[in-house]
Amino acid sequence: MTPPAVILSRPQMGENVGAAARAMKNFGLSELVLIAPRMDWPNDRAQMLASGAADILENTRVYSSAAEALAPFNLVLATTARGRDVLKEIHTPQAGAERLRAAANHNVRTALLFGGERAGLDNDEMSLADAVITIPTAEFSSLNLGQAVLLLGYEWLKSADATPAVRTRSTIAVPATRAELSGLFEHLERELDAAQFFFPAAKRETMVRNVRAMILRSGLSDQEARTIRGMIVALVRNKYRGQK
Amino acid sequence: MTPPAVILSRPQMGENVGAAARAMKNFGLSELVLIAPRMDWPNDRAQMLASGAADILENTRVYSSAAEALAPFNLVLATTARGRDVLKEIHTPQAGAERLRAAANHNVRTALLFGGERAGLDNDEMSLADAVITIPTAEFSSLNLGQAVLLLGYEWLKSADATPAVRTRSTIAVPATRAELSGLFEHLERELDAAQFFFPAAKRETMVRNVRAMILRSGLSDQEARTIRGMIVALVRNKYRGQK
Repeated sequence: MTPPAVILSRPQMGENVGAAARAMKNFGLSELVLIAPRMDWPNDRAQMLASGAADILENTRVYSSAAEALAPFNLVLATTARGRDVLKEIHTPQAGAERLRAAANHNVRTALLFGGERAGLDNDEMSLADAVITIPTAEFSSLNLGQAVLLLGYEWLKSADATPAVRTRSTIAVPATRAELSGLFEHLERELDAAQFFFPAAKRETMVRNVRAMILRSGLSDQEARTIRGMIVALVRNKYRGQK
Repeated sequence: MTPPAVILSRPQMGENVGAAARAMKNFGLSELVLIAPRMDWPNDRAQMLASGAADILENTRVYSSAAEALAPFNLVLATTARGRDVLKEIHTPQAGAERLRAAANHNVRTALLFGGERAGLDNDEMSLADAVITIPTAEFSSLNLGQAVLLLGYEWLKSADATPAVRTRSTIAVPATRAELSGLFEHLERELDAAQFFFPAAKRETMVRNVRAMILRSGLSDQEARTIRGMIVALVRNKYRGQK
């Protein structure tokens, strides 16, 4: 499986090419192609911004036309700031990344095409793209080239990322046994009874239920349940000491 | 509904604060808070990088401690590069954004907390956060502060974005009627028969079916179907002219 190439058309600022390379490396992309760069190449500012992604810049291919640069690719999605009046499907970044992923998994050569800082993509370039990706923004829309590559790279990685939406460290992954929790509940309620905390007596049952719910909500481990019991012991001991 | 505040702890570089402000504005966030910035404030480099988001910098509040800065918030999610050994839930950016959105919709005051460039968040700051967000990356992981704010802002906007995954412009949203398509098919096949394109005759049915499927796949509008019929007329006319 070859991840999509990132193709930048007529980039003007080395900083943005460097930032694009760095963004790519964060998300598992490595193939960078430039069409007619409007800057010296190789470029010092690009090197500086790429930091750990210098290998991507070293392997960057440069072409003078979009037709040459895009020649080897089977599926090309063009990223535009605003959906223009083109007769193509417009994808969200997520849907675009999923389409690229599905194609790449079938050994189809894929590419993400980005326009230059000032003018974006011209009509000739758009005519070689299968479809368009537009990044949703608020009314204020001012993403630079490096940021657009970052967001698409992020969606590319996400399209195969199996990280669960919410997880906890393995050290607290195991909630307390019900035996440990029952022990805690009884211990706490016994001491609260002794301290005449539950008042009036008619409300004891409701109050106990609420306290238990509050404790359960925190998803304690066995160790944490024992820590709380230790705190109760300590608090009660101090109270008796104070009374002496 | 108040969107989450973005809280930057001990930021060192004005560029990153400016980039964060610009990223925020792209995605509908406006409340920026700094804890003990390690730079002059107000900051020229921040102004320069913020470009259209100067209003966010003007309204930025600065506090000397995390406790003060976080005081008004009910739900605080801390973004860390790598999940550290903290006993908190770890969310993906998407799940974190959805949690913030759900809370904000109930008028709960929410915040996204980011650590400084060098040291990240310290233990005191982490202890005030409800949970953690970690951005998934490849093995190479080197996102700067502005990029982290950009990705979280993007997920915040996405969490309420109703843009369909794939759409087409309204000008081509209406596919051709079947009548128009049938007209096209019959016209094309009549001319291809005249040109003895279908050979051998036994394969005509299969070939016709494949050509029709190919045309249907492109989702033509009425106008486009008429354009193709015009092309057929033109091609046939030239052929007869050539024969004269």
